[in-house]
Amino acid sequence: MAHIPALTLFHNPQSRSAGVRILLEELGLPVEVQLVDFKDKPAALLAINPLGKVPTLVADGAVVCEQVAIYQFLAELVPEKGLSPAVGDPLRGPYLRALAFYGSSFEPAMIDKALKRDSGSAGMSPYGTIEGVEAIVREQLAQGPWWLGEQFTAADVLWGAALSWITQFGILEKTPEIAAYLQRFSERSAVAAAKAKDAALIA
Amino acid sequence: MAHIPALTLFHNPQSRSAGVRILLEELGLPVEVQLVDFKDKPAALLAINPLGKVPTLVADGAVVCEQVAIYQFLAELVPEKGLSPAVGDPLRGPYLRALAFYGSSFEPAMIDKALKRDSGSAGMSPYGTIEGVEAIVREQLAQGPWWLGEQFTAADVLWGAALSWITQFGILEKTPEIAAYLQRFSERSAVAAAKAKDAALIA
Repeated sequence: MAHIPALTLFHNPQSRSAGVRILLEELGLPVEVQLVDFKDKPAALLAINPLGKVPTLVADGAVVCEQVAIYQFLAELVPEKGLSPAVGDPLRGPYLRALAFYGSSFEPAMIDKALKRDSGSAGMSPYGTIEGVEAIVREQLAQGPWWLGEQFTAADVLWGAALSWITQFGILEKTPEIAAYLQRFSERSAVAAAKAKDAALIA
Repeated sequence: MAHIPALTLFHNPQSRSAGVRILLEELGLPVEVQLVDFKDKPAALLAINPLGKVPTLVADGAVVCEQVAIYQFLAELVPEKGLSPAVGDPLRGPYLRALAFYGSSFEPAMIDKALKRDSGSAGMSPYGTIEGVEAIVREQLAQGPWWLGEQFTAADVLWGAALSWITQFGILEKTPEIAAYLQRFSERSAVAAAKAKDAALIA
């Protein structure tokens, strides 16, 4: 078993860090949570991440930000949970692709859509077209039950948490395959556990 | 040593795949290169990646796209080259962050800048502000010689290749720390080797 670093998460339940909280529950990892008030960001956060973004993770003193990096970093700390396909596993490439596709293509596409912005030329755009990106998501989830098929991975925590808010905001249509995926995701015990801890944190 | 899968790279020297070619040279990995004409994309590429983006990698039949995923996937196949800090290495988190920051924050920020688009609200924007993102890059490279300090990693191939075209296009100012980094990068033998192979490919 790998050394488990001391973990601190700068977190707000109404933000991109909500899914990281769920992942920590899936992995059974202990963490110190620092609640971030967006109107008054803590100096401890700004000192290590001038952008003041959450999630920001500190692991044995090393700052890890960028949600895709955080998901991957945490999941591979606990390989016995099976949420991070190992190097050499046929799912390794598709797993890395599922994470990178979220951060580099899907989220930029959804933000362009929400802001009604042009995607830019094909050569410039990091993702191609919004329609093309959405088609990939639907096709992937139609195969299910999880992003990579039978195996639930950290990519599903990222996608499950993100699709929840993106469909709630009406940016992406909750088509049948997406609704079914979100239903399966919502039934995981870690989702309820994270929600209960967040409720206690806010109270 | 890990099993090295049979690799096919869909590639165009004037695209985001130029850096992947350099990484393959750094790693000494054999690869079959399929040249992609953007005006007439090969059916073999569109069949596996409807967006038709390059780089697209096929590894033992598994499709790996998204440049950040491809860099990581390739570098960890050859751990003895030291381009991919392992799980448990103090540089692991910073390495994953450097890759994800490029794809999820830096490139979206540069595209917004090039297209003269608004970054969106702080909560919506995946990266915060363009100025903040650029400051992170400058501060990171001022520490040098490489993104993570003394150790050259696959993140430097990604950043070196990307900063080359982004500064050439005038999207990002070539400040002294960026110029010095690009100079160091250009002196690597893999850069010259990749350039020679690309010249032969086009001829």
